Amino acid sequence: MAMQHGKCAHLLNPNFKDDVRRWLAEDCPSFDYGGFVVGEALTEAKLLGKSKGILAGVPFFDEVFHQLDCTVEWHFLEGSAITPIAHVATVRGPVRKILLGERVALNLLARCSGIATKTLATLELIKSHCPNPPILAGTRKTTPGFRLVEKYGMLVGGADAHRHDLSAMTMLKDNHVWACNGSITRAVHAAKAAGGFSVKVEVECQSEAEAREAVDAGADVVMLDNFSGEDAGVAAANLRDWYSGDKKREFLIEISGGLTEANIGQYANAGVDILSTSSIHQGVPHVDYSLKVLH
Amino acid sequence: MAMQHGKCAHLLNPNFKDDVRRWLAEDCPSFDYGGFVVGEALTEAKLLGKSKGILAGVPFFDEVFHQLDCTVEWHFLEGSAITPIAHVATVRGPVRKILLGERVALNLLARCSGIATKTLATLELIKSHCPNPPILAGTRKTTPGFRLVEKYGMLVGGADAHRHDLSAMTMLKDNHVWACNGSITRAVHAAKAAGGFSVKVEVECQSEAEAREAVDAGADVVMLDNFSGEDAGVAAANLRDWYSGDKKREFLIEISGGLTEANIGQYANAGVDILSTSSIHQGVPHVDYSLKVLH
Amino acid sequence: MAMQHGKCAHLLNPNFKDDVRRWLAEDCPSFDYGGFVVGEALTEAKLLGKSKGILAGVPFFDEVFHQLDCTVEWHFLEGSAITPIAHVATVRGPVRKILLGERVALNLLARCSGIATKTLATLELIKSHCPNPPILAGTRKTTPGFRLVEKYGMLVGGADAHRHDLSAMTMLKDNHVWACNGSITRAVHAAKAAGGFSVKVEVECQSEAEAREAVDAGADVVMLDNFSGEDAGVAAANLRDWYSGDKKREFLIEISGGLTEANIGQYANAGVDILSTSSIHQGVPHVDYSLKVLH
Amino acid sequence: MAMQHGKCAHLLNPNFKDDVRRWLAEDCPSFDYGGFVVGEALTEAKLLGKSKGILAGVPFFDEVFHQLDCTVEWHFLEGSAITPIAHVATVRGPVRKILLGERVALNLLARCSGIATKTLATLELIKSHCPNPPILAGTRKTTPGFRLVEKYGMLVGGADAHRHDLSAMTMLKDNHVWACNGSITRAVHAAKAAGGFSVKVEVECQSEAEAREAVDAGADVVMLDNFSGEDAGVAAANLRDWYSGDKKREFLIEISGGLTEANIGQYANAGVDILSTSSIHQGVPHVDYSLKVLH
Amino acid sequence: MAMQHGKCAHLLNPNFKDDVRRWLAEDCPSFDYGGFVVGEALTEAKLLGKSKGILAGVPFFDEVFHQLDCTVEWHFLEGSAITPIAHVATVRGPVRKILLGERVALNLLARCSGIATKTLATLELIKSHCPNPPILAGTRKTTPGFRLVEKYGMLVGGADAHRHDLSAMTMLKDNHVWACNGSITRAVHAAKAAGGFSVKVEVECQSEAEAREAVDAGADVVMLDNFSGEDAGVAAANLRDWYSGDKKREFLIEISGGLTEANIGQYANAGVDILSTSSIHQGVPHVDYSLKVLH
Amino acid sequence: MAMQHGKCAHLLNPNFKDDVRRWLAEDCPSFDYGGFVVGEALTEAKLLGKSKGILAGVPFFDEVFHQLDCTVEWHFLEGSAITPIAHVATVRGPVRKILLGERVALNLLARCSGIATKTLATLELIKSHCPNPPILAGTRKTTPGFRLVEKYGMLVGGADAHRHDLSAMTMLKDNHVWACNGSITRAVHAAKAAGGFSVKVEVECQSEAEAREAVDAGADVVMLDNFSGEDAGVAAANLRDWYSGDKKREFLIEISGGLTEANIGQYANAGVDILSTSSIHQGVPHVDYSLKVLH
Repeated sequence: MAMQHGKCAHLLNPNFKDDVRRWLAEDCPSFDYGGFVVGEALTEAKLLGKSKGILAGVPFFDEVFHQLDCTVEWHFLEGSAITPIAHVATVRGPVRKILLGERVALNLLARCSGIATKTLATLELIKSHCPNPPILAGTRKTTPGFRLVEKYGMLVGGADAHRHDLSAMTMLKDNHVWACNGSITRAVHAAKAAGGFSVKVEVECQSEAEAREAVDAGADVVMLDNFSGEDAGVAAANLRDWYSGDKKREFLIEISGGLTEANIGQYANAGVDILSTSSIHQGVPHVDYSLKVLH
Repeated sequence: MAMQHGKCAHLLNPNFKDDVRRWLAEDCPSFDYGGFVVGEALTEAKLLGKSKGILAGVPFFDEVFHQLDCTVEWHFLEGSAITPIAHVATVRGPVRKILLGERVALNLLARCSGIATKTLATLELIKSHCPNPPILAGTRKTTPGFRLVEKYGMLVGGADAHRHDLSAMTMLKDNHVWACNGSITRAVHAAKAAGGFSVKVEVECQSEAEAREAVDAGADVVMLDNFSGEDAGVAAANLRDWYSGDKKREFLIEISGGLTEANIGQYANAGVDILSTSSIHQGVPHVDYSLKVLH
Repeated sequence: MAMQHGKCAHLLNPNFKDDVRRWLAEDCPSFDYGGFVVGEALTEAKLLGKSKGILAGVPFFDEVFHQLDCTVEWHFLEGSAITPIAHVATVRGPVRKILLGERVALNLLARCSGIATKTLATLELIKSHCPNPPILAGTRKTTPGFRLVEKYGMLVGGADAHRHDLSAMTMLKDNHVWACNGSITRAVHAAKAAGGFSVKVEVECQSEAEAREAVDAGADVVMLDNFSGEDAGVAAANLRDWYSGDKKREFLIEISGGLTEANIGQYANAGVDILSTSSIHQGVPHVDYSLKVLH
Repeated sequence: MAMQHGKCAHLLNPNFKDDVRRWLAEDCPSFDYGGFVVGEALTEAKLLGKSKGILAGVPFFDEVFHQLDCTVEWHFLEGSAITPIAHVATVRGPVRKILLGERVALNLLARCSGIATKTLATLELIKSHCPNPPILAGTRKTTPGFRLVEKYGMLVGGADAHRHDLSAMTMLKDNHVWACNGSITRAVHAAKAAGGFSVKVEVECQSEAEAREAVDAGADVVMLDNFSGEDAGVAAANLRDWYSGDKKREFLIEISGGLTEANIGQYANAGVDILSTSSIHQGVPHVDYSLKVLH
Repeated sequence: MAMQHGKCAHLLNPNFKDDVRRWLAEDCPSFDYGGFVVGEALTEAKLLGKSKGILAGVPFFDEVFHQLDCTVEWHFLEGSAITPIAHVATVRGPVRKILLGERVALNLLARCSGIATKTLATLELIKSHCPNPPILAGTRKTTPGFRLVEKYGMLVGGADAHRHDLSAMTMLKDNHVWACNGSITRAVHAAKAAGGFSVKVEVECQSEAEAREAVDAGADVVMLDNFSGEDAGVAAANLRDWYSGDKKREFLIEISGGLTEANIGQYANAGVDILSTSSIHQGVPHVDYSLKVLH
Repeated sequence: MAMQHGKCAHLLNPNFKDDVRRWLAEDCPSFDYGGFVVGEALTEAKLLGKSKGILAGVPFFDEVFHQLDCTVEWHFLEGSAITPIAHVATVRGPVRKILLGERVALNLLARCSGIATKTLATLELIKSHCPNPPILAGTRKTTPGFRLVEKYGMLVGGADAHRHDLSAMTMLKDNHVWACNGSITRAVHAAKAAGGFSVKVEVECQSEAEAREAVDAGADVVMLDNFSGEDAGVAAANLRDWYSGDKKREFLIEISGGLTEANIGQYANAGVDILSTSSIHQGVPHVDYSLKVLH
């Protein structure tokens, strides 16, 4: 999605550099004995794409090597489909520094590309069911400390990254409603009081009635929780019908809960706005890359 | 606003404790010679409110002393109006630790309360002009590194804190539009492609025509930039009229640019949704507190 | 493996608490609007195991909630097999803090348990081929910044975590050898000069001849790179034969490169000491947990 | 004061760069959606001075843009008086990075310049009363975490920054004396035992007698607390008289407590060495700057 | 010196806890394999003093074990002379945590006590030469990152810690004077302009004439650089004579440069105020401690 | 040892730069008043070696000045013997920045070189006793937070740095064995279960019998604790004899406990593999350097 309008790399604030610093420290807490063996002769290494996938994670990979005084020349654009064996990029610098960054850089690229790849595949599956498909969105079920890279992979793959964190949109679930004496209305009003006009409010709903209460209270998004594709279609149609004409309201309908490649097609034509699923990023296969130093 | 629904303290993630740690380190980078003089006899100190104002900053004050093994008992609720001389709280602990935290704790309380006080005063001024007043919102013109406390003060004072940061809502200004070849439509579409369905988009507009283009493109908020109160009223009415009936759209209208206590009354009845101004938090007078150790 | 001798939790140095702090900050960079909605009533929540798997990640989960002033009571030991729906643990504390930690805690548990589960399954597969199976080991192909938790999951699952980082064992690959003018002997000597007697040296070998040169030079481990199961068996037998009798040397033989659940059985009886594979931790399915607040 | 001898920028240790990093992270904790909209075309922006004031904060502003790969060319020296509308500086770099740094850079400049401006105005007021004026000094009543910038603003404005922190000079107040059984002498001796010969000791005194005890005990500075201008004049004269001739001692007399622009003139001719007041930096009006990207 | 007035522990700001955290992380970057072997049975360990010396470093030692959930009971006060074999303290807690902290805690105690011990011995040597001895002071020649502990050891041993850092007192050496066109007067004036009234200024002088210029310009301390004891005595007497009567000025005279246990006696009676030497803390022998877990 | 195979600088991971940043901050927590005095004229300074010793610490010294925008040109290689007065290096940059880095850079160089010097001297002493000397190794008795530099100094001096930290090799002492019910066998098995095949296990032994139990259980190194040179020779011979022929095992024998320059010669010919002693790095004399700015 994002890729049609600009470069995902332009979404990044340079403060991710501190993460890169920590990643490099994690992989070499004290001495780098291998570095002593190889020394600092200038050399270059080929980044090879060894399995099929979408290239994602470029600016993070760049920063790993930048911190190690190496340069990276890319032969593919981020978001490109890689068919093995592809010469994806060339890394140049002192040999010990190329090897010092190798594992960290490959690990992030493998995971970020894996997410982009699974995302795009899922997106294409949905499109095969529906000419005007709903938005595909990820979740917050990411690896602790690595969310930025994982959400980035979703964006490169064409999905909506969904709310980044608890500060970015308020999601009201059963626990929140229960804490407001069971009143969705009260919960939405409290959420809006705290977050103000700039923070959207989404409500997880178990029924059409709950969804209507949420919209009436001002919710921006209603999430139909664990509905079948068929039930979702009925509910979405009823909601849109109810909020038409004089009662027109703008709101989005999201389906979430248990969506996977296996069943997402059933939801493609349900007429909802958003299909969200962790299956595009949690536990997805990685893309295989390796770094081959040239002798 | 927030205070009617819950406690502002419940908005805080414990990671502000790291800020408190840094603040204490800033005020004593090496040795605390005064601490050597006074020792660790257990004592208590009165927090006195010495100027009129709204009490704000309680959880930050608490954490300063918690990190120094002291306890704080409050005699007023956060958000209360303090009339001098008031005994606002009692701090108990080793005397050197009370003194070690004193200045940091007072500095944050003085500033946070100053913002809450100015915010509430401005809110009451608006209400005096308008029985059903628009939302009063702050800005991002905060002290670097101290935004959480300052936004917190706005919330205690009853304002909307406006977007917290660049990641929380997308604001498109002339520079963004210019970079999209002058097309508000393209800029809004790009913003939505990046931020997805969970991040609102606001567009700064110089005219009704721009505002209509923004709303048509999907903007959630249009900001009328540097309009007079009268012009804002006309524009707001026209926009609401245009987007009524079949063309009904939900969007918010914000006024910003140069609003201060001196002129905000002119905007109170303009029929807009939000008045935003840095005058409630930037360069506002502090509230005067002191800590009196009991002998 | 580890589980037979002690508790994996006893491997942890408290400095992982800083990681937990960062994870919590990542999920809530500024305000927690949902926390405002629910407040701080004391409550309890059930951790439910919703898919089959091995429980792993307990001390990290504990620390998330400890930092949020909540307590966790476990109803299963780490390393236990969980059959859904299982009531795995009970979390108690202020409702907003339970919800603040929920996603971070579940994310780490899902991933750590996923690794333990895949590890154990692979181990059992090997055992089904071989009564006296070789060591199963992981790799450094972990998520940047999250290695400790992932290696921990391998240990709970019964694998050898392999070298933790570049400082923990020296692995000499073709690039290192090339930098020593193609001499494995020189590379091993340089590695031992730098790492000293306390750091093991492993050499990646393409042939028996290379393996013999490595052992002769003092390598502790030789890794047969991308050998078929059959070739590995021949090479291992030849090497053990060569280094017997008067020439007796102690060294370990590792097989690595492309091992997966699909082909690992072919290597089980090759007579090598170690089978290492990223397939037990990279891109493995997660275990599904949820947190259900009790009303 | 400082400005007559050198450049305030030369007072800075590069470790303030870590603060700048944190400030940038605060304003963009995850993605920069606006950056995606505008991209990285190279451009330049004018820094405009929009209200009257003294330019201060230059090296901090520079560092914000340096971390974002932009350059800054200044058209005014730090410490210059700015009359609106002035073209103060030109920032050059990728447009998204200029916008990413804009708010942080303007916020610090506005506050730092505000302090310099108020400081200089107060200084000139004092000079208008007294041809040979006392030193004007600030206090530790600064924004937590932002003290370096605020003290810097005082220096640019011509004031003495007073002690930077608890480690830089020992100030003994009533609580310290009380903890030493009410003996100023004991308190001063303890302070000197701890701080040694390199750390000055100042004593807050309520009377001439206390001031004499302090000087006799070795205090470097005596602070007359909440004296009227007239009383301060009498006390200062008496103290100087007492410590003349054979009893000559070198010490400084400071006045503090409630000094503001409104009453500071009364103290200008009291014959004391130092007038200290938070009114030159706490809650002072900011100076208004904006950044105008050139199209 | 310090010990006669209070407890050195009262000089500490809790922010040294972050250092302790880093020290523990340094000694165990990933897993603690030994901890797995021993487990968490509660036990206690004796801290034994195994060489003669002064106990110093108590609060740092305490914090190491506090972070590891252990407690420390001291059987000697900080500053006490330890004669081997002494049972200095008892540490209680889970055995793996005692062992995890053991090396870090012993390392700091050994070094801090070593400094206190050498300091006290040097002090007693000076006293043996001179009934009313000058102040003995340390220097900034400390281990990077560990200065707080080392300066603390000097204080426990009875020395003056001298300026803690560049921000705590301004020392003008030949390079500073040269940069002011060779004028000590200009250099002192510039230093006072920057540091203000709260920061002392010391000038390193090669001759009496330079010392007089420094005092006349307002220096608080003059340091006679590399003078012999005899020359120092002459210079000190001349300076005190010059600044007597009407010209009375208060200033301190410091001797520095090459002072060691071997020659410091020659300076004891030179009539100067301060003898400063790195020989009391740089490269001094450690005090030997061990931790004996009780079975 | 290391120096014969490569450059010690190639052992370093760039994450030591964070340490350098902290060291610079420690020496100047707020303002650098001296910097104001001298300004930023470009100049150069000679690094002079003023006492005999081995140059060590070059990359750390470089980084201090690199962070301050200065350059360093070395006239000696790391590891060279310096004879005073030697012009070791030239530092170039703005004068205030040279002075800002001076003390930090000299402190680390003095300490690191002191360790290299003592290490080499001890090594030569051993060689004078024994033509084919054992490995000389250091210990973990280093300054908290500064271990990397100190271990680096040992390597430059030619010693083995011994295990870097608790994660790098497992050392089993009496406490570990006791916790395993007194069974060395169980302790070694537990250690191997946790650390896996990549982490060596060393066992501290009080007797030959213990050493045999350790080797039988799989220990890689046995450490004869506090043996006399003669006893060590007997034990080593017996152990090598026992594990010969059919029972051949590869293991190393280390002697540790109380070794110093005074007695290490007695152990040189004992036939053990490793002599480890903190006397080469703990409390060793520093090497004296100074920085002379050229006028």
